[in-house]
Amino acid sequence: MALKTMSAEEAARLIKNNDNVGFSGFTAAGCPKVVPAALAKYAEEEHAKGNPFKISVFTGASTGDYIDGALSRAKAVSRRTPYQSNKDMRAAINNEEVAYFDMHLSQLAQEIRYGFFGKINVAVIEACEVTEAGEIVPTCGVGISPTACRLADIVIVELNSCHPKAMRGMHDIVEFQDPPHRKAIEIFKPDDRIGADCIKVDPKKIVVVETDTPNDGGGFAPVDEVTAKIGDNVANFFVKEMAEGRMPKTFLPIQSGVGNVANAVLAAMGDNKDIPDFNVYTEVIQDAVIGLMKTGRVKFASGCSLTVSNPVLNEIYNNLDFFKEKVVLRPSEFSNNPGIVRRLGLISINTALEADIFGNINSTHVLGTKMMNGIGGSGDFTRSAYVSIFVTPSVAKGGAISAFVPFVSHVDHSEHSVKVIISEYGIADLRGKSPRQRAECIIDNCVHPDYRPLLREYLASCPVGHTPINLNNTFAFHKALMETGDMKNAKIEK
Amino acid sequence: MALKTMSAEEAARLIKNNDNVGFSGFTAAGCPKVVPAALAKYAEEEHAKGNPFKISVFTGASTGDYIDGALSRAKAVSRRTPYQSNKDMRAAINNEEVAYFDMHLSQLAQEIRYGFFGKINVAVIEACEVTEAGEIVPTCGVGISPTACRLADIVIVELNSCHPKAMRGMHDIVEFQDPPHRKAIEIFKPDDRIGADCIKVDPKKIVVVETDTPNDGGGFAPVDEVTAKIGDNVANFFVKEMAEGRMPKTFLPIQSGVGNVANAVLAAMGDNKDIPDFNVYTEVIQDAVIGLMKTGRVKFASGCSLTVSNPVLNEIYNNLDFFKEKVVLRPSEFSNNPGIVRRLGLISINTALEADIFGNINSTHVLGTKMMNGIGGSGDFTRSAYVSIFVTPSVAKGGAISAFVPFVSHVDHSEHSVKVIISEYGIADLRGKSPRQRAECIIDNCVHPDYRPLLREYLASCPVGHTPINLNNTFAFHKALMETGDMKNAKIEK
Repeated sequence: MALKTMSAEEAARLIKNNDNVGFSGFTAAGCPKVVPAALAKYAEEEHAKGNPFKISVFTGASTGDYIDGALSRAKAVSRRTPYQSNKDMRAAINNEEVAYFDMHLSQLAQEIRYGFFGKINVAVIEACEVTEAGEIVPTCGVGISPTACRLADIVIVELNSCHPKAMRGMHDIVEFQDPPHRKAIEIFKPDDRIGADCIKVDPKKIVVVETDTPNDGGGFAPVDEVTAKIGDNVANFFVKEMAEGRMPKTFLPIQSGVGNVANAVLAAMGDNKDIPDFNVYTEVIQDAVIGLMKTGRVKFASGCSLTVSNPVLNEIYNNLDFFKEKVVLRPSEFSNNPGIVRRLGLISINTALEADIFGNINSTHVLGTKMMNGIGGSGDFTRSAYVSIFVTPSVAKGGAISAFVPFVSHVDHSEHSVKVIISEYGIADLRGKSPRQRAECIIDNCVHPDYRPLLREYLASCPVGHTPINLNNTFAFHKALMETGDMKNAKIEK
Repeated sequence: MALKTMSAEEAARLIKNNDNVGFSGFTAAGCPKVVPAALAKYAEEEHAKGNPFKISVFTGASTGDYIDGALSRAKAVSRRTPYQSNKDMRAAINNEEVAYFDMHLSQLAQEIRYGFFGKINVAVIEACEVTEAGEIVPTCGVGISPTACRLADIVIVELNSCHPKAMRGMHDIVEFQDPPHRKAIEIFKPDDRIGADCIKVDPKKIVVVETDTPNDGGGFAPVDEVTAKIGDNVANFFVKEMAEGRMPKTFLPIQSGVGNVANAVLAAMGDNKDIPDFNVYTEVIQDAVIGLMKTGRVKFASGCSLTVSNPVLNEIYNNLDFFKEKVVLRPSEFSNNPGIVRRLGLISINTALEADIFGNINSTHVLGTKMMNGIGGSGDFTRSAYVSIFVTPSVAKGGAISAFVPFVSHVDHSEHSVKVIISEYGIADLRGKSPRQRAECIIDNCVHPDYRPLLREYLASCPVGHTPINLNNTFAFHKALMETGDMKNAKIEK
């Protein structure tokens, strides 16, 4: 039986007002493009006719502008989860036009299956291949696609000719059984495979839309002096841990967050001869990982997405035999599974937006109110890591903002989950320390020298107690920023 | 070869100033008694001679007064982890005499093995049996005993004749391999066993101290009107979830915190005919679980300790054939293992000290500063549960304290981990809701009516943003309590 095919515009009309829609991909990688763009246009037409049209958007993580950008500009989104990083979607969330719930990425697929968010009506999936037997081969990102495809009544497949069919074999597609029938996950090394090379659904549910729209292949800023210093500090921390017997000399798999600091850390690790060749078990495989794979420094990378620039993606596609041996892409409930993180003994490295002197981390909120992106997978990895590291430049906005404050304005990772904090100034090893010891360690090692006296003054203003806080001054830094534009103007009351 | 035996006083002298000492047990259950008491006395003698004498105390969880009470009164503790609930130890922590680090209980044994806290010098283990082959059978609590015994140079066994040798077979003793060699945990149902019935160590390391000191068998306050209503609300929530297909009709295993509210919840679940007979997979098995086991409502209980009153303990010991079929005691890294929690689909029910209107939970700190007990296992269970529930009476101190505040003074469980909050007034189902929706849901359903107008006024004072907070008023409730003794006097500034 031939699969149904139609235009993006026709396919978009299969989606109804109030539907729950699951999209493929993880970051812009692997997201559909022409169907959500057509859907945004359709929503605007409906709105122009006075008809309501909003959907709930479920994805693996952030998306390309085609989904979060276009749909939020069209005011076509009522609910959004679990993560986003698009400026228009962010504005809609912070205007409270969109009800966003910020989730640990590993939890979404199972909570959709548990029925916590209602039925998934439609799945929209980018694929490099789809067969009449109902086999769908994803492209560069997997996310929640297996669950969305199984549960949806309609599966719209964007068959994208930019991605070669020969990609088949790079994915490891599997879904959990749900409690009380859940089995063990047989992943004991980053390169273990436990699933199939495609998603299988009833072909009668499939609608195919053909396209050749390329990925948004964004890159990251080059490594600068501050991020290079952070990278060196991280690498040096590992060398010391191995030398002192707190980390196996064979090393452990690395999870690394997304962005410039993460790229700098990977570069520094690659350059450090005292760190053995290593494996990566992470959510997002970036350019830096592929670079280290070519030099042999990275032996294998397991992730949920290949979020690489277009030149690097072309290189991978032109050398698929090499890279299919060294890369596996899994659904987010496996790439980010805390049980696997703990079993493999992952070293997690994530970026803090803001940290406090006790080791609590804000990954999401500017001044406690404005959502930046979301917690993403950082919680999945951090809580269960062998050792969890947060990295951050000590200051932002030319020094007007200190990354280290008396009290974070939002807590995403509590003191219990955060073992080490590293800035360009040094390493604060928080393991086994009381809150006051942690505060002194962070101030002495990580805080920018301009802010050390202020934070010491704050600490001295606190009453004796297990966690020395002063409720009159907890947000003195934030208030100074709001009122004067510079945290250095913070006034510490007694 | 006969085992060495000696008096508690002689054994205590095997422990040196600055030693890291691992004690058996989990809560007062299973803790040694006469050796720590003798150690406290020895420390006081050393102090009287002008000699320094302090140790680091590592345990499964809280302990009896013999450990945390006696040793803190003797000023014999420098570091303490992972949990405590003793008034003298609490005072020493809040005076900053003792450096306490508050940890997820499931993480301690592995982090000791990883070498994060230095070498364990001595283990002090309560046992109901010890053999010349080096087999040590624990009593009512396991905690970190297998790890402490294996790593210590000296294992002091308190052989306590209050606990029958016939208890052997109630424990499931196993230790993890550490990464990169960790295997799957073959626990797929609460009653699966994967280990041995005893801890095995080189008998040359063992020193035996005989005693007949009974357990501190404390009980809990009876169920009152408020806790009974909370229990009913929890039970009704489960019935609705099953009816609406969000929870399997076969039900799922329960994890339940410790204390009066937990006992009331279990009582209400036992009484509710629409809840099927169920299993318990938890850390602390309390009187209420044993009661429900006798009526058949609880089919099986897996825990780390039998923390029951002495009459209930005697009943268990007099009916060991019955209870050994229905109870297993595991090390805390298994009883509290997040991977198992997620696999089994545990329903976690824990008590909040304080919650904020966005669903962040403070489990540990009074007014952000004074440590109460510690996070315990609540984080191990909450983060990975099928559905995580926090329960709390809406007010404390006759209404002067609202359990619900604009902003918690300490975050132990972030909004990301908290799915449902239940007070005596009702149920706030936070799944899939934005922060403002969560705030409205909590105020409408859980907050005491006396505090609803104040919290609505606070919410109205916040600028628009994903999480509506007002940094000028975040701690208005706490300040009113400190300054006037009543949170109802909180002043909300614009």
